[in-house]
Amino acid sequence: MDFLACGLDPTRTVFYRQSDVPEVTELTWLLSVVTPMGLLERSHSFKDKTSRGIAASHGLFSYPVLMAADILIVQSDIVPVGRDQKQHLEITRDIAIKFNNQYGETFRIPKEQILEEVAVVPGLDGQKMSKSYNNAIEIFGDPKETKARMMRIVTDSKGVADPKDPEQCNVFALYKLFATPEERDAMAARYREGGMGYGEAKKALHAKFEAHFGPLRAKREELASNPDYVEDILLRGAERARAEASITLERARKAVGLE
Amino acid sequence: MDFLACGLDPTRTVFYRQSDVPEVTELTWLLSVVTPMGLLERSHSFKDKTSRGIAASHGLFSYPVLMAADILIVQSDIVPVGRDQKQHLEITRDIAIKFNNQYGETFRIPKEQILEEVAVVPGLDGQKMSKSYNNAIEIFGDPKETKARMMRIVTDSKGVADPKDPEQCNVFALYKLFATPEERDAMAARYREGGMGYGEAKKALHAKFEAHFGPLRAKREELASNPDYVEDILLRGAERARAEASITLERARKAVGLE
Repeated sequence: MDFLACGLDPTRTVFYRQSDVPEVTELTWLLSVVTPMGLLERSHSFKDKTSRGIAASHGLFSYPVLMAADILIVQSDIVPVGRDQKQHLEITRDIAIKFNNQYGETFRIPKEQILEEVAVVPGLDGQKMSKSYNNAIEIFGDPKETKARMMRIVTDSKGVADPKDPEQCNVFALYKLFATPEERDAMAARYREGGMGYGEAKKALHAKFEAHFGPLRAKREELASNPDYVEDILLRGAERARAEASITLERARKAVGLE
Repeated sequence: MDFLACGLDPTRTVFYRQSDVPEVTELTWLLSVVTPMGLLERSHSFKDKTSRGIAASHGLFSYPVLMAADILIVQSDIVPVGRDQKQHLEITRDIAIKFNNQYGETFRIPKEQILEEVAVVPGLDGQKMSKSYNNAIEIFGDPKETKARMMRIVTDSKGVADPKDPEQCNVFALYKLFATPEERDAMAARYREGGMGYGEAKKALHAKFEAHFGPLRAKREELASNPDYVEDILLRGAERARAEASITLERARKAVGLE
């Protein structure tokens, strides 16, 4: 619903739930066999999550293999991701190349596409924004809660009168994502000259956020009140995805000798 | 074909290829999520195989989860195994209990059944017999090659005249598997009194092996010349297995919230 509300067109984009395409887990197993343990042990995401106290389950550890299957099963060329996902694409390529070398050409080798200006979006605490870190501002969260969260974005303790460095400020980092170059430069100048407090900057960010996502929120609410419409898009998407996925899976099964 | 030749009745036993039941890999993923890494890291089989230079692939590491899915998906009560497989059943139970606790009763908790007298069958070198260790005597291997391999079973270097300890001898350990209690005791006495060389013991073992498996070999050759008959048994088995497997998978999917 988020993607649809933001304007992705279901006649041009295939939306599907991973769990509606069981071919993905079957391919995951075939990929596992050529995945060296070291490749997964070096995954930043696993180390990062477990070091934050998230339980070290095998599902978390082997998640990069499932992701590789997600990507490879539809013969992806380009995968649009944030910078923190770059390693997952590297792991996917490593697995695909190893499989192709061992069993013959089976998978297209995908590339990541990272838009530099949104490569990393900071969360409330300045770390990478992530639901797992509980520092996210949800695009379609409750509007009051969203505003309250924005007002809690961590800043330094400079007073209203003090000149401030926009490049060190989490509020500015988010503001930039919504602003035209002129608006961005004007805001940066106000940071540097002093006289604007962080509270005001947060309100400016919130206004930009609302101008951008407010209308989409209305669209999303309409979608939410039409679950059959959304479900239909997902089921038709799954049908199209399975048609592609089953071709790739058959190819991979044949390659390893399961016919 | 081995099992059929040995007399298992396909009308009472459901034979199927794992790869014909894709529900297994889907369940494997669901089980992964509740499998602690430590459980797999403690697996003897993984440590043993990698210490022998077998590549540490993720497929090898996560194999116990696939095995758990194999066992749980048909709601097994009893799993007949060798002693070296005991830990796999323990891992399977741990995973099943954790899943049941977390998501509600879904799986029956299986038990291993280990026949003490055949709990561990030694290979040519006295270690556990295993294809991966290249020390196996194949039941339906080439007869000449099989005899040649048997003559290479490792023994100590005692001469024909020397008294020998049957309990320390790999040849006797295999002979026991085919002998009646009386034959076993008679052979043990010949070991202890001296005058019988290891070559003679190996020939006695080979005679027992042939008397047991020779007729079955003929039956297996007949099956091998009838691939359609065997394929039909496998496909009908897969159908019956999938009927069971899909019930368990649906239950597990529902339990974790995929409906």
